[in-house]
Amino acid sequence: MTEPLPPGSVIGILGGGQLGRMLSVAASRLGLRCHIFEPSANPPASHVAERVTTASYNDNVALAAFAKAVDLVTFEFENVPTEALDLIEDTVQIRPSRQALAISQDRIAEKDFLTSIGLTVAPYAAVDDLSDLEAALGRIGTPSILKTRRLGYDGKGQHRLSEETNLTDVMAAVQDTPCVLEGFVDFEREISVIGARSTDGEVVCYDPGENVHRDGILDTTTVPANIPASLKQDAVLVAGRILNALDYVGVMGVEMFVTPQGLMINEIAPRVHNSGHWTQNACEVDQFEQHMRAVAGWPLGDGSRHSDAVMTNLIGDDANAWREAPSGLHLYGKAEARAGRKMGHINRISPKS
Amino acid sequence: MTEPLPPGSVIGILGGGQLGRMLSVAASRLGLRCHIFEPSANPPASHVAERVTTASYNDNVALAAFAKAVDLVTFEFENVPTEALDLIEDTVQIRPSRQALAISQDRIAEKDFLTSIGLTVAPYAAVDDLSDLEAALGRIGTPSILKTRRLGYDGKGQHRLSEETNLTDVMAAVQDTPCVLEGFVDFEREISVIGARSTDGEVVCYDPGENVHRDGILDTTTVPANIPASLKQDAVLVAGRILNALDYVGVMGVEMFVTPQGLMINEIAPRVHNSGHWTQNACEVDQFEQHMRAVAGWPLGDGSRHSDAVMTNLIGDDANAWREAPSGLHLYGKAEARAGRKMGHINRISPKS
Repeated sequence: MTEPLPPGSVIGILGGGQLGRMLSVAASRLGLRCHIFEPSANPPASHVAERVTTASYNDNVALAAFAKAVDLVTFEFENVPTEALDLIEDTVQIRPSRQALAISQDRIAEKDFLTSIGLTVAPYAAVDDLSDLEAALGRIGTPSILKTRRLGYDGKGQHRLSEETNLTDVMAAVQDTPCVLEGFVDFEREISVIGARSTDGEVVCYDPGENVHRDGILDTTTVPANIPASLKQDAVLVAGRILNALDYVGVMGVEMFVTPQGLMINEIAPRVHNSGHWTQNACEVDQFEQHMRAVAGWPLGDGSRHSDAVMTNLIGDDANAWREAPSGLHLYGKAEARAGRKMGHINRISPKS
Repeated sequence: MTEPLPPGSVIGILGGGQLGRMLSVAASRLGLRCHIFEPSANPPASHVAERVTTASYNDNVALAAFAKAVDLVTFEFENVPTEALDLIEDTVQIRPSRQALAISQDRIAEKDFLTSIGLTVAPYAAVDDLSDLEAALGRIGTPSILKTRRLGYDGKGQHRLSEETNLTDVMAAVQDTPCVLEGFVDFEREISVIGARSTDGEVVCYDPGENVHRDGILDTTTVPANIPASLKQDAVLVAGRILNALDYVGVMGVEMFVTPQGLMINEIAPRVHNSGHWTQNACEVDQFEQHMRAVAGWPLGDGSRHSDAVMTNLIGDDANAWREAPSGLHLYGKAEARAGRKMGHINRISPKS
């Protein structure tokens, strides 16, 4: 048993986007204070955090000062450079752990890990050059998807391959970045489970949500997912197995495909997740508060759901919906509504079915 | 029709206590940014606001700079000095209006106003000196309560009078501050209605809550109140009448006594109110977001209730409850848990009855 960080403690958050913003708001409910570290100026989280450090992840002086000023460090995105984490960890604890981060930063490491604990993923192979790609295609075939091993999100850095694809062109497009070839999964639906694990090893998962994407970006998450009860239970057990295997502390998002052969893991995110935003309006304790409770060493909160919910992302000009939305509106404070940019979301709730 | 303040606008809030803190959090959901003006250092709202001015309400330079830096001013408490408001209003609009503030700052003005629109209040009389007090007691009798006309809250500045009370001692205790003598109301229960009115004159009221006090401080608010449906409707109509009569914009708390003769108004507060904190966990849009929507000129939100709720204040050492509360916890970020100090609250919800 670790002693929980008491109210008044300062949580450092790496990254100042909308996830950091909503983490900071949730922390305030628990009497915890937040200090954001973010390279870009005027980020969404800066509007609701007590302190903000604006500096690059390569700025060792700023990183050291940040680490000294906080009682614990967590993060809102998984692509923080290893060197920055090393430097911070010399001074203060990081939760979730480096192991979880390292695995989720590399698609091959992630798939190897998931397979090693007996879970199913799409057929995959590492691709570093044209001959790797040809060999991988020989085994996996088409249709398939070539993804960069690192730094991909929202469909960026992904190329769909068919029989007609010119392989030389594709390798040129990825500029010889290390990649993974994934077999195309003809799934019925995509679901995700938002799970949390405490420092004591307690696990609490939210009900699975059903995700629909548009142009490679999450469009809606609907809860409950339209799947049998047994599959919901399987999905929650799978998430729990991943959390336990990693000795994880914090909230994790686990995306899964529902296929005729059962559940297949798409990817894991070692942080609060867009497909968990519905919890803000439909649950007693939302994913952001749950994450803060977990990393601060508190007992997990009651993640039970009092309502059904549909979360709809507001992308680009969708944000103009603020003029009409009578409830469940969450805007991120971004000044410029660029196409494809997540500007906010709306949670529509209805009585629990 | 006024044009609403768009997301990205800056709302100035006079006062940085827990109400300012929760207003700031609600504003962030709407993409609005907050600038707090507060005389004391490190106030609760400063942990979740983008900007904080630490200055006295007599600091004209700081007030002028604050007014210039924001798009609108609202307040979390009603005792802002008139001169400060005058100075701010030279530059930027204040909502709710000065009229509502002026009335609620003076118990006599408030009771005169409520009586003038046909509502019932306890018998009252202005008391400036001993002879006023004797005359007032001759008319109102005992038991009764002598309250300061201004600056009273949470039972402070109140003296209960019985037949045995030494009147000279009481006048010495209030140090000749202008007072009001109120007849003691033998009420069945106290309820309150949190109402909101938009710039377009739309009114939305939350379901009445039932309040129980302990040592002069609100202890619990329970929703639904244990009163007949007809009385709930009356209570909401009364709140609506007050909001309309004042051409009010924003959220107001209206405390009422349920007596054998019907509803009697105890007092009004031209701001979000402790007895409305339950809305955070039991409603689609809470009182804080509703206030921000109203003052920003937005359409009001959906104030409907999806759950029953009991709000319990955490006073002084009650705040240690954070170790056990699995949901509905709201701490205010105050460093010192002094006796009688509001440190937080817990909202316990249950399925709607």
